[in-house]
Order: sequence, then C-alpha cells, then structure tokens
Amino acid sequence: MTAPATHAEMANAIRFLAVDAIEKAKSGHPGMPMGMADVATVLFTRFMKFDAQAPKWVDRDRFILSAGHGSMLLYALGYLTGYADLDIEQIKNFRQLGYRTAGHPEFGHVDIADTTTGPLGQGIANATGFALAEAMQAARYGQDVVNHYTYVVAGDGCLMEGISQEAITLAGHLKLAKLIVLWDDNHICIDGDTALSTSDDQRARFAAAGWNTDACDGHNPDDIARAIEAARKSDRPTLIACRTTIGKGAPTKAGSEKIHGAPLGGDEIKAAREAANWNYEPFEVPAHVLAAWRAAGSRGSAERTAWEGRFGKLDLSRKAEFERTQDGRLPAGWQDAIAAFKQKISTDQPKVATRKASQDVLEVVTAAIPEMIGGSADLTHSNLTNTKACAPSVKAGDYSGRYIHYGIREHGMAAAMNGLSLHGGFIPYGGTFLIFANYLWPALRMSAMMEQRVLYVLTHDSIGLGEDGPTHQPIETLAALRATPNVLVFRPADAVETAEAYEAALLNAKGPSVFALSRQNLPTLRTKHTVENLTAKGGYVLAEAAKELNGGKRQVTLIATGSEVSLAMEARKLLADKGVAAAVVSLPCWELFDRQSKEYRASVLGEGSVRVAVEALGTFGWERYVGLDGAVVGMTGFGASAPADKLYQHFGITAEAVADAALARL
Amino acid sequence: MTAPATHAEMANAIRFLAVDAIEKAKSGHPGMPMGMADVATVLFTRFMKFDAQAPKWVDRDRFILSAGHGSMLLYALGYLTGYADLDIEQIKNFRQLGYRTAGHPEFGHVDIADTTTGPLGQGIANATGFALAEAMQAARYGQDVVNHYTYVVAGDGCLMEGISQEAITLAGHLKLAKLIVLWDDNHICIDGDTALSTSDDQRARFAAAGWNTDACDGHNPDDIARAIEAARKSDRPTLIACRTTIGKGAPTKAGSEKIHGAPLGGDEIKAAREAANWNYEPFEVPAHVLAAWRAAGSRGSAERTAWEGRFGKLDLSRKAEFERTQDGRLPAGWQDAIAAFKQKISTDQPKVATRKASQDVLEVVTAAIPEMIGGSADLTHSNLTNTKACAPSVKAGDYSGRYIHYGIREHGMAAAMNGLSLHGGFIPYGGTFLIFANYLWPALRMSAMMEQRVLYVLTHDSIGLGEDGPTHQPIETLAALRATPNVLVFRPADAVETAEAYEAALLNAKGPSVFALSRQNLPTLRTKHTVENLTAKGGYVLAEAAKELNGGKRQVTLIATGSEVSLAMEARKLLADKGVAAAVVSLPCWELFDRQSKEYRASVLGEGSVRVAVEALGTFGWERYVGLDGAVVGMTGFGASAPADKLYQHFGITAEAVADAALARL
Repeated sequence: MTAPATHAEMANAIRFLAVDAIEKAKSGHPGMPMGMADVATVLFTRFMKFDAQAPKWVDRDRFILSAGHGSMLLYALGYLTGYADLDIEQIKNFRQLGYRTAGHPEFGHVDIADTTTGPLGQGIANATGFALAEAMQAARYGQDVVNHYTYVVAGDGCLMEGISQEAITLAGHLKLAKLIVLWDDNHICIDGDTALSTSDDQRARFAAAGWNTDACDGHNPDDIARAIEAARKSDRPTLIACRTTIGKGAPTKAGSEKIHGAPLGGDEIKAAREAANWNYEPFEVPAHVLAAWRAAGSRGSAERTAWEGRFGKLDLSRKAEFERTQDGRLPAGWQDAIAAFKQKISTDQPKVATRKASQDVLEVVTAAIPEMIGGSADLTHSNLTNTKACAPSVKAGDYSGRYIHYGIREHGMAAAMNGLSLHGGFIPYGGTFLIFANYLWPALRMSAMMEQRVLYVLTHDSIGLGEDGPTHQPIETLAALRATPNVLVFRPADAVETAEAYEAALLNAKGPSVFALSRQNLPTLRTKHTVENLTAKGGYVLAEAAKELNGGKRQVTLIATGSEVSLAMEARKLLADKGVAAAVVSLPCWELFDRQSKEYRASVLGEGSVRVAVEALGTFGWERYVGLDGAVVGMTGFGASAPADKLYQHFGITAEAVADAALARL
Repeated sequence: MTAPATHAEMANAIRFLAVDAIEKAKSGHPGMPMGMADVATVLFTRFMKFDAQAPKWVDRDRFILSAGHGSMLLYALGYLTGYADLDIEQIKNFRQLGYRTAGHPEFGHVDIADTTTGPLGQGIANATGFALAEAMQAARYGQDVVNHYTYVVAGDGCLMEGISQEAITLAGHLKLAKLIVLWDDNHICIDGDTALSTSDDQRARFAAAGWNTDACDGHNPDDIARAIEAARKSDRPTLIACRTTIGKGAPTKAGSEKIHGAPLGGDEIKAAREAANWNYEPFEVPAHVLAAWRAAGSRGSAERTAWEGRFGKLDLSRKAEFERTQDGRLPAGWQDAIAAFKQKISTDQPKVATRKASQDVLEVVTAAIPEMIGGSADLTHSNLTNTKACAPSVKAGDYSGRYIHYGIREHGMAAAMNGLSLHGGFIPYGGTFLIFANYLWPALRMSAMMEQRVLYVLTHDSIGLGEDGPTHQPIETLAALRATPNVLVFRPADAVETAEAYEAALLNAKGPSVFALSRQNLPTLRTKHTVENLTAKGGYVLAEAAKELNGGKRQVTLIATGSEVSLAMEARKLLADKGVAAAVVSLPCWELFDRQSKEYRASVLGEGSVRVAVEALGTFGWERYVGLDGAVVGMTGFGASAPADKLYQHFGITAEAVADAALARL
C-alpha cells in the first residue's frame, strides 16, 4: 500500500496533465496551470464547497477562472475530482474538434465552467454578478438555503483591463464579502516582465475600492490556506496576492514569458518530470493521487445532503419559486399582463417615446416577474429603467431590493448581468444609451455566446437624440449588434411593439436581447389590437398598399424600424398622392424575421416591388433586404448637434426623401 | 472707471454664459461649468500657457475637458479669452445646426478643443497620449522647444469608466509628470449622490497607480492655485481632487443632480443673478470683466514670442523635421521603399502570414518614417509589431524610444494613440488581436470622428486562429468596423496587399485604418509586380475568368478578402474543371472600393454574373456586393476550438462550398 498522496503530488497531477495535454495539442498555455497548481489544490481540497457528482448543485461555491487561457487548470481539476463530463479522453483531446475541452473554458461545454472566460477581465467582472446574485438570493431565501462563496483566479491581464476596475469598485461598494479573488501574482505578462508595462500597487488599488487584501506565498500550501481562511471571515471582498512562479516546475522556462502560451517541448517536459520525480507516462495519474483527488471531489456530498434537508424545510410555495426562478421558468400569467397592456395602448394611442413605453412595459413585467432585476449605468432618469416593483435599490448590506445603481460602468454592468444570469435565480436588465453599447459590447458578446437571457435597455437610439451631438449619436452600433450572433436586436416603432419586444425577449431564454429605444415621442401605429405578437415575427406588413391604387398591386415596399416607421407611413401617403401603391413594413427584429419561412419573408418584402429602407442610423447591412436595386435612406457619416427635427432635415432622412427614392426607382 | 475684475466676477462670467446658453438652447449641462468655474478661472488666468490669438501654437499647454458634457465651460473660456472662432453668436447658438458650439466639444470645430470629448473616460485617456507625446517630442527636440503641460478636467463619470484605470496606470507607470488631472469632486452623478454607486477612495487609487495626489477647495482660488503650483513641480502625474458644489451659484438646485443636465429655468436664473449680484442681461459680460479675460487670453503671447526665438535657433534640418512631422506631412522617399518591398515579394513569393508580412512592411516604413511609433497591448510577439527602427521601448524617464508596451489595455492604448496623434508629431500604430477591437471600439470611433491617422494592427483575424476558440475568433468585429464611418478596414490577401494597405493607410491622413491580419500562412497571390497600388482601389480583379471558357465571358464572380482569397482561387479552379468561367475579385477594403466609379465597380463585380463571397468571419453586410441572389460563404454563429484547417472544414468554408454555391446559382 502506498502512502497517502501529498500536496505536492496532487499539485503535480494538475501540472503534468496540463503539460501533457498542451504538448499533445501543440498549443495552449501551460504557465498559469503550473504556477497556480498549488493554490488550486489548496482551494479545491480544503475550501471549495462542491460535489463533482452533482456539479450544478445550486448552493455550491462558484469557481471562476478569469485567466481563461489557463483552461487546463480547470479541466485538470474537473478530471481529477471526478466530473463525469471530463474523462481522460477529454484531456487527451484538449483543443480538438468535437471535445468539450476548448482552448478557453466554455460555459455549457463542461460542468465545471461556471462561466466562459478568455477575453481578459470578463471573468472577474462576471464574478461581481455571481457574488451579488448570491447576496440577493440569500436575502430572499435565507442563509440556510443560499450561502456560498465566489472564488476567482485572475492574472495580471485581468487586473490591467479597465473592466476589472469597474467590477472591483462595484463589488467593493456593495461589500460583496463572499467574493475572493486569488491573483496569480507572477510578475510576467506576454511581452515579458510586468514591469515593462505596469507599476501598480494592486493591493493598494483594491483597498482604495473598499476591499480587504492579503498576500501569500502561492507555493506554500499552509500560507495559501491561512490567507483563504482569513478572507472567508472578512466583511468585505478580498484580494489575495498569491506570489507565484509562472510555469513552476519547468526547469529552464519557469519564471519567463516563454512558458506563458506555448508547449514546453519534449526536453523540458522530460527534465520537469525528473525534477518532480514524476515517473509516470503522459496523462497517467498514479492511483493514490487520483484517489485523493476523487475524495476531494466528493468532499461536499455530505454538505449537499444537509443542504437538501434544509431546502426541504422551505414552504412549498417558496420552494417552488426558488426552483422555478433557478430553472429560468417564467411565472404563470405574465403574458396576460402584457396582452392587457397592448390592448390598452391600441385603444389609448398615446404619443410617447419608446423609452417611456419601455418603462410602462417594465412596470407591467417587473410586477408580474419577481426575478427580474433592473438597473442602469447611471442613466436611470434617461433610460427610465426603474419601476415601482423594483425600487428600492440594492445597497451594501441590504440586498433585498431589485434595482442596481451600476454607476458609470457600462462594461462592468453588462458583465455583472452575465454573472447574475449565470448564477441562476434572476433575469437582469440594465440601461444605458445605445451609443454606449460600444463600451459594453465585449460583455454583450459573452451574453450571446453563453446564451444568457440578459436584457439591454438602450435608449437615445439615433440622431433623434438631437443636441448631444455626434459623440452620442449611434451610427454603427445597431449594425454591430445585429452582426453579433445570437442577439435579438429590437427597435420597436411604438408602445405596442415595445410590449411585444419585451414579450419576445423574455421568451427567448437562450440569449440576450437588446431594445433600441427612442428619446423622442412617437405616435401609436398599431392602433388595432392583435392577439398575435407581430414583433415576434421580426417583421410584418404594417400597412398594405391601398387597394384603390395600381389595381391593388403593391409597387413599392417601404421598410423601416423604430422611429422611422411613422416616417415611412408619411412617405406612403406622399406616394399615394402620386398614385403609387406602397406598403409599409415594420422590421423591428432582423434576427427573428430571418427565421421565418421564405414564403412569409417574400410576402412581407413584396417580391418584385421597389424597396426602400429608412433608419436614422448607419445604412450598413440594409442591402440584405433591399438588395442591389433598392435604396437605403439613413446616415453615411457621423451626426451633428442640433434639435432632432433639424437633424432629420439636414441629413435628408425625411418622408420626401423616402418617397423620392422610391419614385426614382419605379 | 470701474475696479479691476475680481476672481468671482471672472468665474461668474463663465457661469452665466453657460446658464444663458443652455437656457436658450433648452438643453445642456450647466452643473459642471458652474461647479468648475472657479478652478477653470484660476487655471486659465494664472497657469495655462496659451495665446488665444495663436490657438494652435505647438508648445501651448493642452486643456482637455474630459467631462465633455460641460462643453459650455470650454466655449465660455474660448469666448472670454478671445479665440477668434468663438464669438458671442456662437455662444448664443449653442447646440444649433451650423454653429461650432456642439453639445459636446469637437476637435476641428473649435480651436480650443484639443480633442473631442463626451463619451466618458475618453478625454482622460487621450490625455495620457498627449502627455506621452510631449515627453517623447521633448526627448527628440529638447525642452527649449517642447515643454508644456496637459491639464484635464474630469468628473466622477470619467473616473468610474474602466478606460480611466487603463489610462492612469499607464501614465503612472511612464511617470508622465506634466499630466495634471483636476477632478470635479462634487459627489453627484446623474442618478443622484455618488454614494449610490461608488465608495472609491480616488486619491488612494491614483496613488496606487504611481500618481502624486492632492486636494483643494474648488471654490477657493488661492487653494486651487496652491495645488496646481505644487502639481507642476511633481515628478509624477498629479490628481487634484477639487471639492466643488455642482451648479455652484444656483440658489435651490446647486448640489443636486437636478442641475447636472437640464436648463435652470427662468426663476432659478433670476435668483442666481440676484445672489451673485450679476446685474447684466443674458450673454452680457461687463466690459471690465471681458477685458480682464482678454488680458488672460493674450498672457501667453510673450512666451510664444520667446519660444519662436528658441525654435528659430534649431538646425534648419531639425526645424524642417519638426514642422513636417507636426503638420503630418510624410518624408520624401517612403513610397519608394514600399515599391521596392512589393517588387521583392512578387519575385520571392513567400508563403507567410499577413501578420508576418505586416512586420516586414513595418520594418520598411518605420525605417523610412521616423515619426511612426509602435506598440502593442501586450501581444508584441503575436502581433509582430516591433521593428528594428522602433526598438528600444519608451520607459519612465527615457522617452527617446519608439515602441510602447501598452500593457493589457486595448481601450487605453487606442485612446492614448488618439492623444499621440492629436498632439502632433507622431503617427502611432498599435497591435492587438482583431477580437479585442471590440474592447477598443469606442476609442477607435473617436479616431474616426476626429479624423486621426491612427493605425490599428489587428492580427488573428478569423476562425483561422484555430485552437484559441470562439472567445478569440472574431465574427462580428469586421462588420462593426466596416460600419463605423471614416475607418479604412483592410484585410489583405498576401504580403503584396499588406504593403499596399500600409501605403494607402499612411496616405489617408484624415482617418484611422485597420489591418485585419492572419495568424496562418498564406501564399503570395500577387505574383506579378504592379506599380499601381491595387489595394488602394479597394477591390480589383485578381484573376479574370479564363478566356477559353464560355467564350471568355465571365459567368461567376468570386469575391473574397484576406486568407479566403486563395480559397477563392481554388474554387475558381474547381469551377474551371467543370467548364465554368469564374473570376476572383480581391476586396481588401470596402470603403475605398465604394469610392470608385460606378463603372469600375460594375466591371470588377461582373454585372450579370453569379456572385459568391467568402470570408471566414460573420456574413453580415456582404449583401452589399452579392445582392439578394448571390451567396455568402462564411460564419453565421460563433466559432469553435480546433486546428484551423479542421474549423474551415467543420464550418463549410471551403473551395468546394464556394464552387457549389456558384454552381447552384448558374
């Protein structure tokens, strides 16, 4: 019988799995898994609350590998602790097509990945959302049911990215005490020594953001344990600077940028094995080490059983609510509330900005869906994102509210919303101006890739915002969002479409949705109530060509979104005055329209008709609907500062211009 | 004769110009100009080195209103100090079409705006570039010729944005001692008290980044002066926390978010005038106050004359070099170097990645153009951005180098490059992966809006990067960049096109250029040397349909960019094998192609031919060239992690797929 596995053996199991997998893949990042193997071993064998046999247990601690290029650290941990979806074949086929072990960890591919990481800074910013979700869920269900930590492994890259500042200042402000960041303080970045590009005192920086901070020798298990133990007792989030050597264990390459992102090579691996006395074949983990790891993997099973007992004691209705929200199922009746709202609008026919309509819809849906939580990047009064049901705000120490003042942190807000959504139990929505989607785009991309139901309430959606001028007028933003896979981009034309857009977005459980909303007032165009959600079809004929013109045969199709749909309606009238039969198509969501049948799309777009699109943003991408022979009336450069009506005239986005473009093509 | 103007009167002149202009415009942000009027008055009357009569004097101090919504502060200063382009009519027509006084200050509209600001955080990040440019230019020409400060007014919004962290850590690292940030510490953001969303200790945060910090009473002129005086002597950049009251002078609204972004209203204005004893009509500045301000505006004229004397003493050739680089004129002969390089490539026909070709071209152009300065966001070895001419690197205290280790700060890098370019004297280029253009997009937008020649070297430009997987594979990025006005987006197919792209980008003095470059090797396709820069036409026929097929009449046009041009060439061969006459069009730059004559474009795209486009990124936007009847072979979702050749197969981006798409449409 062999001796029990030592810490060093267990850490070396991580190191050599990483080394071997990267060597076989001929690509990958060994430096971090080797450097952080000791920290990870201490965390997973002594602290992490998890059960590899029940990987999605809701009260598990979360582990976020913000330095996602070190993915082999995560995969090694998963295999060693016994996650069913990470067998040795997965490790052997690291970075290969058809395997779960992607170059960077991906949520939904492997159970152990609580989030997708790789784009630096996203993970630590997600973590703020995870920790906030924990605090908010605990405030709702009590610490007997919700009580877990969020651990983050972050590198210098994560901490140099601006988004990390947004994340840590928000976490510090909200005193998210169960958030613990283990910083891989290895003094190496890709270009070489970190001293090439940074002189930050990271502990002082985190302290300035209200964090507890500590340091440890990242290769001394007891010192690591001491620091984590202390961090868990803090009343503030904690940064632990883990002083490590990148590529620890590689005889000649350790401590150098050369080991960051390339295989070690045969000679270095051989020497590393010898130095560590690791006399095993590639991918071989000796039985006693694997057994020790597997024991660590089931360490949490008793805790889980105890938790199930506590959870079982909840009221039946509370239990059902917890499970419903955790599973992402919407409550009964919420669509009735939207239907009633739609009917009222079609009757009242208000002239309101769609941002105001959005607020009215949010009043309805946040009242009906308690897991919706709102917020804004410091534009609450402009985005109109707060509601009676959501107020009051979440505060440090009181997480019972449903509204978050994210501050002027668009990117951090989006990444935090990803964390809130990934954690489970919440449907987050957050507001800013549409132009500032440019700031949060990398995190929105992650919402899309991770298929998270995150709602982006983006107001002031065109040159129609007027006087704030070109710096605030989105031109390219909508095209970029439409070009991003798995994002539903809605630009509703009136309050009815706004309500329908929210309904479609909430039903879209597997991806984010964006609402581009006007600052300026718009007439109600959907004056006849429909039970059917027309916006959910992406596009539809709002007004067919008049029967009395051209024998009822459509000659022109005017296609528009949002604030320009009413302008297209005016153009239709101008054309009618000249005897031209024009239909108006409202196209609030390209992605949903493209999913309709070919026949439906052809009928809406009017095959053979002259097509003119109009949108008071950049024209890029509209050829998809108007083709090479149609026209697009929109912006081809940046905007200007003036009252909105003056700008529409100045840039030629008018009913006359739309009608003229059609006439020129008849 | 009246008494000389007091500080209070001079500051009130700013306040009431702002109040009156915003009231007349019925929109704008009075809170900041009123709150910072005292600080601005001290700065402009006692410290700023400038001459309103020679607004673009190169050795002037720079003033960056990072909190750009307070634009009326800047316009008031411009009018009061006597800038010729800011008369009282401009102030009276604040935010109106056809006037220079836009909602947010715009570079190129008013001389006093050293940069365009408004999107928060951009200004302070530009400032890092300005201060770096000053240090680098001083290292080249001496302090007799280059010796000025960069002053920044920043609000809480700027400091909460993540980009500010990237900027201040870079500035602190590089010890940019002549950078002085005046923080409008007014405890108010748009949602209300800043305590709603932040608890940062800003001074501690800046200190952690290596800054000198201080605080002052932002309404006490002597205390403000003391702090600025001390800051000018620091050997590090300085943050001065100016404790102010937002909307200072408004009797009921001061100190509240209500005054941040809305006109005061008649009653409040009346009461403010009474409280300040400001018995003047709207827009009226009493003569003695205006005279005092005008004196401040010409205060720097003697300094300027002295500077001209010193500048006159430079060597003729050094003087010419300074003026040439400051004016943005390129040196003689640089195009010959590119032509020679092109010819050599056409002969040698190497198979290299375009990122490697980019490095080779950079070697050529940085040797020929000394004002080019390079850098990378910590991906030097991957982007291949360093050159013999540029090394060694810029370091704190030694600014003579030409290469900047920007660190993992993509957004900060782009904004710093804007500052470097705006300052004058340099043409900056900087590298990162194409996917991380998503991180720097808001700053690239500013390069475009401000018409700055900033070069973005973006490598790893498609799923062709392989194993790093979907988090690192750009899908939507290229579409977004193409949708952004005034950006030249180049995706060269081989080393010849890469050289041509650089030539076209350097000739494009009025906007940024992007190079999307492959990680993987590509064959040389331009095997016949052309003197003409074909890439500068945006698109051209690389291979016409074979004469022996279909009577020499082109049936199919295959359109591709970058790494897919060689794939299109293979498809052409497959089609030829089936007797189909197909041409290949290389379309490296859509923007330049769209500027060509209609006839040229039609001849290239082959009117009447079946069109198939192929690009290993998202297909969004390609209908502009293939229309409704053509096909686009590309990505419709996110990528995957595997070797590149496997991914091309997996996602069906192959010569066979391209050929099949054409055949299906014949």
